[in-house]
Amino acid sequence: MQKGLFITFEGADGCGKTTQLNLLAQYLEQNGYDVIKTREPGAKGLGEKFREILLNYDGDVSDRCESFLFLADRAQHVDMIIKPAVEKGKIVLCDRHTDSTLAYQGYGRGLDLKQINMLNNIATDGLKPDMTFVFDVDIETSNKRVGKEKDRMESAGDDFFTKVRNGYLQIAKMEPNRIKVIDSTRSIDEVFEDVKMYIKNALK
Amino acid sequence: MQKGLFITFEGADGCGKTTQLNLLAQYLEQNGYDVIKTREPGAKGLGEKFREILLNYDGDVSDRCESFLFLADRAQHVDMIIKPAVEKGKIVLCDRHTDSTLAYQGYGRGLDLKQINMLNNIATDGLKPDMTFVFDVDIETSNKRVGKEKDRMESAGDDFFTKVRNGYLQIAKMEPNRIKVIDSTRSIDEVFEDVKMYIKNALK
Repeated sequence: MQKGLFITFEGADGCGKTTQLNLLAQYLEQNGYDVIKTREPGAKGLGEKFREILLNYDGDVSDRCESFLFLADRAQHVDMIIKPAVEKGKIVLCDRHTDSTLAYQGYGRGLDLKQINMLNNIATDGLKPDMTFVFDVDIETSNKRVGKEKDRMESAGDDFFTKVRNGYLQIAKMEPNRIKVIDSTRSIDEVFEDVKMYIKNALK
Repeated sequence: MQKGLFITFEGADGCGKTTQLNLLAQYLEQNGYDVIKTREPGAKGLGEKFREILLNYDGDVSDRCESFLFLADRAQHVDMIIKPAVEKGKIVLCDRHTDSTLAYQGYGRGLDLKQINMLNNIATDGLKPDMTFVFDVDIETSNKRVGKEKDRMESAGDDFFTKVRNGYLQIAKMEPNRIKVIDSTRSIDEVFEDVKMYIKNALK
């Protein structure tokens, strides 16, 4: 059996990545592919408990604790969901993965990037996405889309948003073959045309 | 103000460490010291949520996920509870800490020891216990004490117990100044005499 594909969807809050993930899943299924939609933090099972803590815990969470919690979630996710699915030939579409840790904890909170890469590598057991989309938006577009109901991660402020956004653009420069940056200030349909173009190439 | 002390209690399940920790806390308080009793996993606050997952989750938990979860708990514990207390001159008595990860995940489950040391170091931000007790028991004594009501970690079997026990003895050999091994097949009172002897020296 042919090995599947592992595709990650990245970007700052309000970039539209979840909408695009759902559109792509629908498109691929209509074309006969076996697709799994998943996310970090908070894949099915244990991940849901991690997500609850990461997004809604109302006490103080230390920065290093937060990082390790994302890594725990990732290790479980890779071992129990992503790897088995890819090995069965499925296409795994994942909402946030290793690049989120680099962008948010590294570029956003200023934790050591080399260390994050090393920790990500332990958490994924070396698994890398075959393709990653970074949906790039400016802060005005993000604020308009996210609205007033923000979770703990989304409430960190404008300065943080800018650091995260610039972080993603830096990461994309370092791995242009894997990471595709898509201007996501445009309409959903326009953005999805770009996504489809990249996917068609990957599936050739 | 004088810096406090950070003392950890280690050993395989059923070794009596929690009993000894409580006795020592009582003894120190009676002698006018300001004592904090805490534990890993599961210090007050976020730690309780981690403990719930680590000990009672009924699905499969991947080995690397488990390790990261212990580290998340540890980072939060060090930052929010242990460091602030030691800096205020208190004596912190902690039921399990870094050596548990080495003994259980390293020697017990076979994860890379060097990597665990490196991860422990990130989680503790370099903080080391001033003194560590390893309460050493054989498997017969452990089984008698733990009884039939075992949690997820305690149910891993006799072979695992032996690996963990031998792991602790190895770790103690590498750091004889910090780590004191106490024969804990003896009575509670006899074991506590040894604990008091070491503590009196440390407080001189």
